[in-house]
Amino acid sequence: MNTQNQENRYKMIVAYDGTNYAGWQIQSEAPTVQQELQDALFIILKKKVDVIGAGRTDSQVHAMGQVAHFTVDEKLDHYNLLACLNGVLPPDIRVFKIEEVSSDFHARYSAINKVYHYHLNLGFVKNPFTRLYSWHVRAKLDLSKLKEAADIFVGTHDFTSFANELKTDLKEKKPVRTLKRLEVVVEEFGVRLEFEAKSFLYKMVRNITGTLVEVARGKKEISDIEKILAKKDRRAAGQTAPGWGLFLMRVDYPNI
Amino acid sequence: MNTQNQENRYKMIVAYDGTNYAGWQIQSEAPTVQQELQDALFIILKKKVDVIGAGRTDSQVHAMGQVAHFTVDEKLDHYNLLACLNGVLPPDIRVFKIEEVSSDFHARYSAINKVYHYHLNLGFVKNPFTRLYSWHVRAKLDLSKLKEAADIFVGTHDFTSFANELKTDLKEKKPVRTLKRLEVVVEEFGVRLEFEAKSFLYKMVRNITGTLVEVARGKKEISDIEKILAKKDRRAAGQTAPGWGLFLMRVDYPNI
Repeated sequence: MNTQNQENRYKMIVAYDGTNYAGWQIQSEAPTVQQELQDALFIILKKKVDVIGAGRTDSQVHAMGQVAHFTVDEKLDHYNLLACLNGVLPPDIRVFKIEEVSSDFHARYSAINKVYHYHLNLGFVKNPFTRLYSWHVRAKLDLSKLKEAADIFVGTHDFTSFANELKTDLKEKKPVRTLKRLEVVVEEFGVRLEFEAKSFLYKMVRNITGTLVEVARGKKEISDIEKILAKKDRRAAGQTAPGWGLFLMRVDYPNI
Repeated sequence: MNTQNQENRYKMIVAYDGTNYAGWQIQSEAPTVQQELQDALFIILKKKVDVIGAGRTDSQVHAMGQVAHFTVDEKLDHYNLLACLNGVLPPDIRVFKIEEVSSDFHARYSAINKVYHYHLNLGFVKNPFTRLYSWHVRAKLDLSKLKEAADIFVGTHDFTSFANELKTDLKEKKPVRTLKRLEVVVEEFGVRLEFEAKSFLYKMVRNITGTLVEVARGKKEISDIEKILAKKDRRAAGQTAPGWGLFLMRVDYPNI
């Protein structure tokens, strides 16, 4: 128990423009957000600190509210650390908040709710300001079909048809997930899809988005969605929407 | 009159992310938006075409609704040209619309109204997504003071104190302008200042913004604004807000 008490665990809220990163998780040959955070902590704290994220966002995926934790022996001055981290990190990664949490807090396993947004830029000409932050779909979309199709995904389903296999851990996972919310919100230059669930399967948001776009442009029927879900086969669903339209917006925890 | 009739004039609505440009106007040693448009037209039409813009945005200033015109001998298929131009232009410059206009239309001299937006990102930590599109002001701003101060600028004034000298043509210009609208709109991560006038003096929007921020953070008083205007001296006003927070949103013309 004594060693437990010497651990000090800190929770961070991190935002990043994922354009120039090969995603969250450390890779040997490409820049990643996790690596940048660990490097910045190394410069400030002068030791290697493991940073654990709530979700491993893919290459070019963005975050406004990624959550991560790390554990160190000493008590830290959060306010000072926040300023120092943002002084060392590249400008496309910012830590918005640091707070001390109990040593049983885990950014990934303690999470009870996640919100992702997927942005579609609609219209003949791509908006130069959202080109790195939304999927430009030139085809005309039927928004009422899009909304009707989105509603079908809400609830508890076996989402196997909308999950890509992640070599490391999909096999152990149960493919049943409860999508609490999938809303279509009209924006100035397109629409935003808001997804909310306790957890998502690998590429689930992007795979659902790809299929919704196919329905809204008339390449699939609304009635196909139930059939695709029933097939439990990734090949039955539509394309994977590109990573750069996706934002991890928020991760919620009990009593925080 | 015969040569006049052979001229075909086209109006374009152009949007650009100004981050990587030394502004609109052609310069010999730096990339500019006007140069990129002329280069793209040269590739497509196989001849040099002069592109005249409604306003010369400065280095790193953005546009959602810049207007430009050009004149050629032949009739053009606009729809085809729009697609071709966007196929040749870099992704941070897009032409949203091309239409034929009468030969007396002039993007700059025919304009009757312009709208600029200036974005301020407020808060301790800079938002990584707006870092190239807003001025990050960490100091706490008093928004009611900001609004009260903004109201003083609305109307007809001699704006000499808020104009930088542009070597080529300020001397000939009258420094009296009528600011029709200056609104403070609260956004998710800060505020947006909306400016509307028939025309603006050089750097007027950025100079007014710089002074408004000084008032809102308590470094100048609201009562100072009338005095600064009366002095007709650029040195009396506050700093010039950085270019990257500024967007040329719209240019209006009679009967178009």
